[in-house]
Amino acid sequence: MGTPAVVLLSGGLDSTTVLAIAKDRGFDPYALSFRYGQRHVVELEAARRVADTQGVKRHVVADIDLRVFGGSSLTADIDVPKHDSAAELTDHDIPSTYVPARNTIFLSFALAYAETVGAQDIFIGVNALDYSGYPDCRPEYIAAFETMANLATKAGVGGSSLKIHTPLIEMTKAQIVRAGTALGVDYGLTSSCYDPSASGEPCGRCDSCLLRLKGFEEAGLNDPLAYQAA
Amino acid sequence: MGTPAVVLLSGGLDSTTVLAIAKDRGFDPYALSFRYGQRHVVELEAARRVADTQGVKRHVVADIDLRVFGGSSLTADIDVPKHDSAAELTDHDIPSTYVPARNTIFLSFALAYAETVGAQDIFIGVNALDYSGYPDCRPEYIAAFETMANLATKAGVGGSSLKIHTPLIEMTKAQIVRAGTALGVDYGLTSSCYDPSASGEPCGRCDSCLLRLKGFEEAGLNDPLAYQAA
Repeated sequence: MGTPAVVLLSGGLDSTTVLAIAKDRGFDPYALSFRYGQRHVVELEAARRVADTQGVKRHVVADIDLRVFGGSSLTADIDVPKHDSAAELTDHDIPSTYVPARNTIFLSFALAYAETVGAQDIFIGVNALDYSGYPDCRPEYIAAFETMANLATKAGVGGSSLKIHTPLIEMTKAQIVRAGTALGVDYGLTSSCYDPSASGEPCGRCDSCLLRLKGFEEAGLNDPLAYQAA
Repeated sequence: MGTPAVVLLSGGLDSTTVLAIAKDRGFDPYALSFRYGQRHVVELEAARRVADTQGVKRHVVADIDLRVFGGSSLTADIDVPKHDSAAELTDHDIPSTYVPARNTIFLSFALAYAETVGAQDIFIGVNALDYSGYPDCRPEYIAAFETMANLATKAGVGGSSLKIHTPLIEMTKAQIVRAGTALGVDYGLTSSCYDPSASGEPCGRCDSCLLRLKGFEEAGLNDPLAYQAA
């Protein structure tokens, strides 16, 4: 039996790679996904497929409703921005797809889950390079969360310590795709699109699709997903 | 128009006092309560009564389900511990009513709400003296959350700063009751009991009831609530 670890699993390329890395490092993964009012619920179906096939100890889907606050195109009725190529994504302005405090809320739930299953390790697929300008993907943010978490919990009181693992934080999308492929990840199970069709086909033109496609291209690998016709 | 502030409002004695303090300091309160699978849902009715009568700008009740993780007598089917007097509460062991990462989750939602309404101030009624042994009520925990929050959000990126206000943190329950009474708080609207009757009558014997009753007694004031007969 391995050491338990909570793995935040959206069902996208990054978190699916993180799950494979956690397993490769000998952890027993307890996967955690969220139904948070996101428009792209096909992501959750991808998370279930990944959890089912990659062998997790348990998969919890927590219901939270960030729509009560409004404020983002991922949860409200604002159009998802579309582009013709990844070249348009070079500036690091905070995009309208930013969800207020999302990673903080996700990590807080992961902390509760970790404490319940006796885990001292949490894995999250944040990425500071291809990060599209989200402030809560920066290394200094993760370090501050870890400090806070160790003061928040029973574990912190007892002197043992909780660790937030961010194996992708300094990897390019191409490096992520290569690492996951080396570990046997089937990226055909994953879903990255901010605005997929009803049947789950990715748009190929939102920030997330463009970064993904660029990653596969730079890695010299084929993305197994079937994209919507332009 | 005042400055917006998010106030965590459980409908209990402490958070209702905090709301009055936030208003007294000139803030426009945006109240936030949670439906989190707690057994004492009468608390939420109290939060509504308080929000309705104390004049908040908006009151949001967020649905989160901490029961998916289990692990506490406040959300699971474990008996709430009962005592004959507050004298039994002197040790600072972490009690079974501890909910994993609860304040971290609550503050994370408050952060999302604050960002959405443009607030840079969050009020929470944590208390380090009468705190019953919860690690996430300590001043060093609150300071660490504030540091993390300033790295997490758009506000933190822009250089402005978010502040977590804990006006009760060093007050005894008696001082809290006196402060609230001086500000005109009607404690008959509030609910503190971990295990009330179906009609909302407090038990008078759980940790929370005993600390409350002791506070009123030491303040030389009467608790307007009608307690269940012993």
